[in-house]
Amino acid sequence: MKLASLKNHTRDGQLVVVSRDLRHAASAAHIAPTLQHAIDHWADVLPALQALYAQLNEGKAPGTIAFDAAAAASPLPRAYQWLDGSAYLSHVELVRKARGAAMPQEFLKDPLMYQGSSDYFTGPLDPVLVASEDWGVDLEAEIAVITDDVPMLCTPEEAARHVKLVMILNDTSLRHIIPAELNKGFGFLNGKGVTAFSPVAVTPDELGDAWDGRKLNLPLTVHVNNAKLGSPSAGTDMYFDFPALISHAAKTRPLGAGTVIGSGTVSNHDRSAGFCCISEARAMETVELGEPKTPFFAFGDRVRVEMFDAAGRSIFGAIDQQVLQYAR
Amino acid sequence: MKLASLKNHTRDGQLVVVSRDLRHAASAAHIAPTLQHAIDHWADVLPALQALYAQLNEGKAPGTIAFDAAAAASPLPRAYQWLDGSAYLSHVELVRKARGAAMPQEFLKDPLMYQGSSDYFTGPLDPVLVASEDWGVDLEAEIAVITDDVPMLCTPEEAARHVKLVMILNDTSLRHIIPAELNKGFGFLNGKGVTAFSPVAVTPDELGDAWDGRKLNLPLTVHVNNAKLGSPSAGTDMYFDFPALISHAAKTRPLGAGTVIGSGTVSNHDRSAGFCCISEARAMETVELGEPKTPFFAFGDRVRVEMFDAAGRSIFGAIDQQVLQYAR
Repeated sequence: MKLASLKNHTRDGQLVVVSRDLRHAASAAHIAPTLQHAIDHWADVLPALQALYAQLNEGKAPGTIAFDAAAAASPLPRAYQWLDGSAYLSHVELVRKARGAAMPQEFLKDPLMYQGSSDYFTGPLDPVLVASEDWGVDLEAEIAVITDDVPMLCTPEEAARHVKLVMILNDTSLRHIIPAELNKGFGFLNGKGVTAFSPVAVTPDELGDAWDGRKLNLPLTVHVNNAKLGSPSAGTDMYFDFPALISHAAKTRPLGAGTVIGSGTVSNHDRSAGFCCISEARAMETVELGEPKTPFFAFGDRVRVEMFDAAGRSIFGAIDQQVLQYAR
Repeated sequence: MKLASLKNHTRDGQLVVVSRDLRHAASAAHIAPTLQHAIDHWADVLPALQALYAQLNEGKAPGTIAFDAAAAASPLPRAYQWLDGSAYLSHVELVRKARGAAMPQEFLKDPLMYQGSSDYFTGPLDPVLVASEDWGVDLEAEIAVITDDVPMLCTPEEAARHVKLVMILNDTSLRHIIPAELNKGFGFLNGKGVTAFSPVAVTPDELGDAWDGRKLNLPLTVHVNNAKLGSPSAGTDMYFDFPALISHAAKTRPLGAGTVIGSGTVSNHDRSAGFCCISEARAMETVELGEPKTPFFAFGDRVRVEMFDAAGRSIFGAIDQQVLQYAR
């Protein structure tokens, strides 16, 4: 099943079911007005949503409209929790190597994860608004899951059952702000921009064999200004899988329904697959050439993040954003 | 005006207006079903809420009920954003001094602030549930404000206008988990428990002269097992005031309505006022006696946080929690 939230006069958008081919949508307002409402009452609303999805794919849903990603907000236009892991250690390793630092051994035992800003997410085709190019504006292309209620001390085995929806995302990162901020010791705040998720969120069954219950085994493709930056496999080198990330987050407290958990930048040890952030390309250039060549974003640049199934069909729709100057 | 959310069958509770003396309440459901809804539409709903509050204080509100803090959730039972500052540098200084570390000079220029967990807050009289006493369970008594929409690049002067409500809180902190977690560099996640806010949130006008538009000039009183731990003044030694904290948070992105911004543990350079967390008492003992004497919480311990006006009346109602063992 594929779900989206169309922009409307409210902050949470209107829940729609989207056809498998992403061409059509039907309002699910009579079942659940918003995606947060649906995830708050998942077991209760799932059968009716699934029935509507089946109707829609058969061309029989009443009030079917064309699905326009430009009219979509992020599936959760705002969320009560957004936790972003850093599960691809090749990303951590490469970025640290470029500044001459080794990766601490404890990073192999305990996932890196930070509490991210979730008070609003932009739509998949909305601009990335930043006040200055000097912030070092970068993308981070990732996979994320949405959970229902997760109890404290949830084991990884149990955590797998709490994955209800899967998305892809662009976590805008401000590279020239991050180092000083992290040095203060309290994590990211000013160093992250507003996150954008894919037009649709999908249930794991929609991913077929590509979802193994723990991770998503497909490449994630990133273009910057129509040039491919990379398409590393999201199923390769994910050192901490989603159940491990969820279990880590729930070590000392429960997680509320609608918690979004991110994988961190998808990254492979095999660098020939390219990159899901500019920073890794620059780190690689620094290691190989002595200095970075690929620039961070300038105003007007575009970034596109998408995932295709084995048959080449877009699963989540594209995140396609232009970096623009914020003016008050 | 004083507002609370009574627990009901929903995750967001039911909005009520509470009388100035905290004795009575009247449903505000016909004006706004939840506090989040009210803050999403603040200018629209404020006149009707204020009129109901005036009626309630005159004993004329229809359907008036007794206000029972035990039936209250946190004013926002869950929020889209919880940002906790560390604005009392005497807290930072003392805790660092106990481990032989000086306070970096840049802490005087740029506020410490972390993105906290907001997917659910416990009610003011709900237990603090932790799995182990070995976590080093501590309180942090703080002041917090709730903002409406704050634009990116908001100046401190402008930020003052975005403070809509004020609360007090207990930010449960797990002292034996925090050091290793902060060393990883991504901030707090497992090191913080579930936060509890006061029974009511109040508009700044309710605080009279004690609210100077930037900070709250009254002592915050903490008891542990009926013994006073301290009552430092929240208006003294607050190095970064609320407008400065809001402006800091909005440096690279806007803040959505309902953002909660905390002061960090209230702390005075004059140690005779006592402490708003056990950790500071232990740090003081370490500096003066060579080792800490005050234990962290054991199961069964109680913590009470309250603020009284100049006439000795409780402003927000008490946060009164018992530390209990979490069992799955």
